[in-house]
This record gives sequence, C-alpha cells and structure tokens, in this order.
Amino acid sequence: MQGVPVLTAVEQAIGSELLEAEQVLADELQSENPYVSDILQHSTRFRGKRLRPMLLLLTAKASGGIRNDHKILAAVVEMIHLATLVHDDVLDEAETRRHVATVNSRWNNETSVLFGDYLFTHSFHLASSLDTTYACRRIGWSTNIVCGGELSQIKERGNLDLTEEAYFRIIDGKTAELTALCGHLGARYAQASPEVVVAMEQYGRSLGLAFQIADDVLDLMGSEGKTGKSLGSDLTKQKLTLPLIRLLSTVPEKESIEIRQILSHPDETTRRQLSPYFERSDAFEYTQERAKSLSDDARRQLELVPMTPARKILAEIAEFAVQRSF
Amino acid sequence: MQGVPVLTAVEQAIGSELLEAEQVLADELQSENPYVSDILQHSTRFRGKRLRPMLLLLTAKASGGIRNDHKILAAVVEMIHLATLVHDDVLDEAETRRHVATVNSRWNNETSVLFGDYLFTHSFHLASSLDTTYACRRIGWSTNIVCGGELSQIKERGNLDLTEEAYFRIIDGKTAELTALCGHLGARYAQASPEVVVAMEQYGRSLGLAFQIADDVLDLMGSEGKTGKSLGSDLTKQKLTLPLIRLLSTVPEKESIEIRQILSHPDETTRRQLSPYFERSDAFEYTQERAKSLSDDARRQLELVPMTPARKILAEIAEFAVQRSF
Repeated sequence: MQGVPVLTAVEQAIGSELLEAEQVLADELQSENPYVSDILQHSTRFRGKRLRPMLLLLTAKASGGIRNDHKILAAVVEMIHLATLVHDDVLDEAETRRHVATVNSRWNNETSVLFGDYLFTHSFHLASSLDTTYACRRIGWSTNIVCGGELSQIKERGNLDLTEEAYFRIIDGKTAELTALCGHLGARYAQASPEVVVAMEQYGRSLGLAFQIADDVLDLMGSEGKTGKSLGSDLTKQKLTLPLIRLLSTVPEKESIEIRQILSHPDETTRRQLSPYFERSDAFEYTQERAKSLSDDARRQLELVPMTPARKILAEIAEFAVQRSF
Repeated sequence: MQGVPVLTAVEQAIGSELLEAEQVLADELQSENPYVSDILQHSTRFRGKRLRPMLLLLTAKASGGIRNDHKILAAVVEMIHLATLVHDDVLDEAETRRHVATVNSRWNNETSVLFGDYLFTHSFHLASSLDTTYACRRIGWSTNIVCGGELSQIKERGNLDLTEEAYFRIIDGKTAELTALCGHLGARYAQASPEVVVAMEQYGRSLGLAFQIADDVLDLMGSEGKTGKSLGSDLTKQKLTLPLIRLLSTVPEKESIEIRQILSHPDETTRRQLSPYFERSDAFEYTQERAKSLSDDARRQLELVPMTPARKILAEIAEFAVQRSF
C-alpha cells in the first residue's frame, strides 16, 4: 500500500492514535507460553491494511473525536479480524497470506483452530476492560453474526443456483457486519447523536459490502503477485460470487451448461477456462456497478457529519474500495 | 448417569435452578438461519453431565445463595464448554461424542470450526447481558488460558519425555481453569467473602485436575461402550498422560525403550500392547493416588462454607470424580 495518497492523509489525521492502537495490540499479543509467543510473533507478519482500526478511529474522529476507549476498541476489532483470518485460512487450506506462510501451513490445522480461539477470547477479555458492557454486547453480537454468515457460505458451497440475494446475505454477515460495527463503535464512543451512530454504522456496512465484492472480483481476476494471497480459491471451493452469479443468470442456456460443467470440476485451469465467457458478458461491469453504488451509499452517509479531513478520508476509502487491485 | 445417587441430591438442592439455566441455554441456542439451527439442534444431543453449570450453581448455593445472574452464567459456561468440545472433536478427528455423531463427522471440519466460533461468540454476548463487565473479563481471561493450555498440549504431542510438571500445567489450563472459573463466579455472584471466593475457585481447580486425570485414565483403560467416546485417542495423537509418564519414569531402561518404540508407531493395538507393562508397574495406583489427593484438597476447600446439602454434594462430586468409569 506504499504510495497510496489516502494513506498519507490517514497518517496526518489519525497517525498517532493508530500507532497507539497498534501499541495496545502489540502489548496484548504477548504470552509467557513460548509456543504461543512464537505464533503471536509470526502472526504480526500478516500485518495488513489495518482497515478496521482505521475505520473505527476515522469514524470516531469524524463524528466527535477520538477518546482512549477508541484505541482499545480499534485493537479489539483488529484482533477479531485476525482470528477470523486464521480460521479462514484453515477452511480455505490457504498456504500464504500477505506473502507469509499461514499458521496452518507453518504449524498445523489444530494449532490454527486453537490460535484463532486464543485471539477471539483475548479480544473479548480486552473489550471487557472498558467501563460498561456495551461494547462487549455489541462485539459479541456482531461476531456471532459473522460466524453465521460464514456458516451460510459453507452451506451454499457447490450451489450453482445461488441467488444474488443469498450472496448479499452471506457477505453482509461475514464481512459487512464487522465494518458496520467499527462505524457504530467509532461514533457511539465519540458521544455522537443516535442519527450519526446509525449513519456511521451504515457507512461501514456499505463499505464492507463494496470491499467484499471487490475482493471476490480479485479472487477471479487478480494477480497473486500483487495481492500476496492464493487466488482462485472461491472457484476451488465452489463458492459462487457476484460476477459468476451474474454470468450464469445472463448467458444462453448452452453456455450456462458449459460453465456449470467447468465449475463442477474445478482445477488450476478453471480461471482461464472461464475467461472467454466473462469477456463476452457484462458480468464484471455489472459487478463493478453494484460495488460502485454501495460505495456511493457509503459516501452519502457521511453527509451527516461536518466536513473534516477525517470525513474526506472516509469518502476516499469508499472510493478506493472499488478501485483497488490488491 | 441414571441411578447415580448424587444426582438425586443435586435434583433436590438445585433442580429448579438447573432447569432454568437449561432453559436460558435452549432459548439462546436458537437461530433464524436454518443451517445454523440444524447444527444447534443436533448439538443438543451431546447433552452431557452438565458438570460446569452444576458446579457454578452448587458453589453459589453453598456460599450464599443462587441469584438470577447465576443462571445466565451457568448457561454461559456450558456454552463455552460446548464450543471447546466442538473444536476438540475437529482436533481429535473424533467421530462420536456421547454416542452421537460429532459435528465434523455429520457435517465437515469447516462447519465445526465455525460452529465452535459461533458458540464462543454467543457465550460472550450472553455474558455481557449482565450488569457489569466483571464476568466478561473473568470469562475472557479464563477461556484465553484454556486455549493456551490446549496449544501447549499440541506442542507437546509426540514428546515422550514430557514431565509431570508440564502435564499438570497443560491440564490446569485446558480443564481446571474453566472449573475454577465456575467456583469463582458461583461464590462471587453470591456475594461471598473474598476468602470464600478463593476457596471455591480452588475447589473448582482441584476438582478439574482430578477429573481430567480420571478422564486420561479412562482413555487408556476405559470401555467405549460405557463412555460413549472414541477411546485411545491420546495414544493415537501421542499425547502423554499421567499413567504413561509415571510408567516411563519408573520402568527399567530396556522396557522404557520397548514402550517408546510402541508409542512411536501408534495403532489400534497400542492399548493392548501396553497392558503387560502397566500390569507390572504402579502407574495406575500412583495416578489414582495423585487424583485422590487433589480430590481431598477440593473437599478441604469446602470447610470455609457452612455444612449444607449443596456443600455435601460438592464433596460427593469430588469423590465421584476419581471413582467414575464413564
């Protein structure tokens, strides 16, 4: 992400608070158990976009100001996100994440399952260091919805008749619920009005949906070099995403049969085999359009807060979400 | 467990509160998502001893009286226990639990991982319905220690030189921490004095250790018919438990080499191959002695609370823990 202009602006707007949240995270992710400590150390190398802490701090800044609780909450949401990534990598049998060996490939699946649990339980412990149960309750609720979304995704694996509606329900749970939570907690702990809390939550939700759609497009079209992830895994796992759902619902029956045939026997050539069908269809344009409209919705939500550098960055993140190639 | 006299006494002492806690659990384990709902429904068939809710309610009753919060906390600890069981079954590749197909064998590993996460996050959400963050903080902390204990266990798999000390550290984390938590929360939410809270926590810890040792003995010696579990899994996974640690540290070198040879290539005959060595050694007597002394310690902790039917049952549970064959 070096050289992305929005990051320089983030640095200026919430740089020191983001560093403090990083420090909370680093302090928390220590263990006297040498085995746990090794894994914790390794997992810091997955250091990613830090999207969720950023969202939480930026929505806080945009809707009233960053307080001490926000830094703790930013560390909590990142820890939860990390827990879901660790478990996702087990589910996907992924070997690398951000160019680094996953916990399951470096250690084993058992360790990954338990390490994910370790991060989940630790995040709740950290959340309960705040004064009231409010954050715990919201975080418990949202993470529970995330799990429900991921379970639905597993259930629908191999379902080549997945509807757009079902797809949106799944990504709303597995991705957008957590980004919505960031917006909610950011505004709520900044003492914003209930209307602003709702708007920031909706900002997070629309952004999360747009982000996930873009992620799904990358899994079909992206470059492994740029993203640092194993790609094509949605195809391998027979998870239908928006471009494919659109493709299947718009091609002539003959092609639909051919595509279903390809999808039923996924291998490393599947992405390539699908290319000609995608090239003849509007699937990617349509998908881009849907993502764009969610990104627009996210930006509309920002109209409820005064124009500040933080609001400007939130708008840029929404724009970036649908343009990124990594 | 039908016909166990202690259960009739439990019925009389905390029957209605246990039912209310069951009801909280049943009400919480509902989902509008039909897939999740199916798994939740299936998992109710793992209905086990309900040891942890019982402990929490009995220590509450023995140290001041059961309040409404206790019923919620009892449901919370059972949900956490269920979450760890679901993940344990993935790690152990177990096919049955309490005579019922495990989630991983009925569905798949991915579903089990996510369903365990679902239960963890749900339990935290439920815990945060109490007035203060106290229970959340303790529960987050203890469950985090449970995960650390399980991770250490995985690390030590295949280590045929595991010491008694390391074994006790592992079971203290993976089992005794949660039963200690039950004692702690039971007494604390009954407004007991700090001394009684400490004693009830220690009761739970010693009981948990004794219980785990007995469980480990059963895995080596028990009958699959009686326990309703796949047995011998510690050997298959090369997890050294107390009887084996004792055996290895007391046999002559020649036998030690033979035993290590057997343990290095585990298969379905391993339990039988080890029998003659165990018969010639004091390993089971020694193990029984250690468990007995922990059970005695648990009972000694009860001297701080007045003699009541609840205290009497807690003493009987401690006695039962080291005598059970299922």
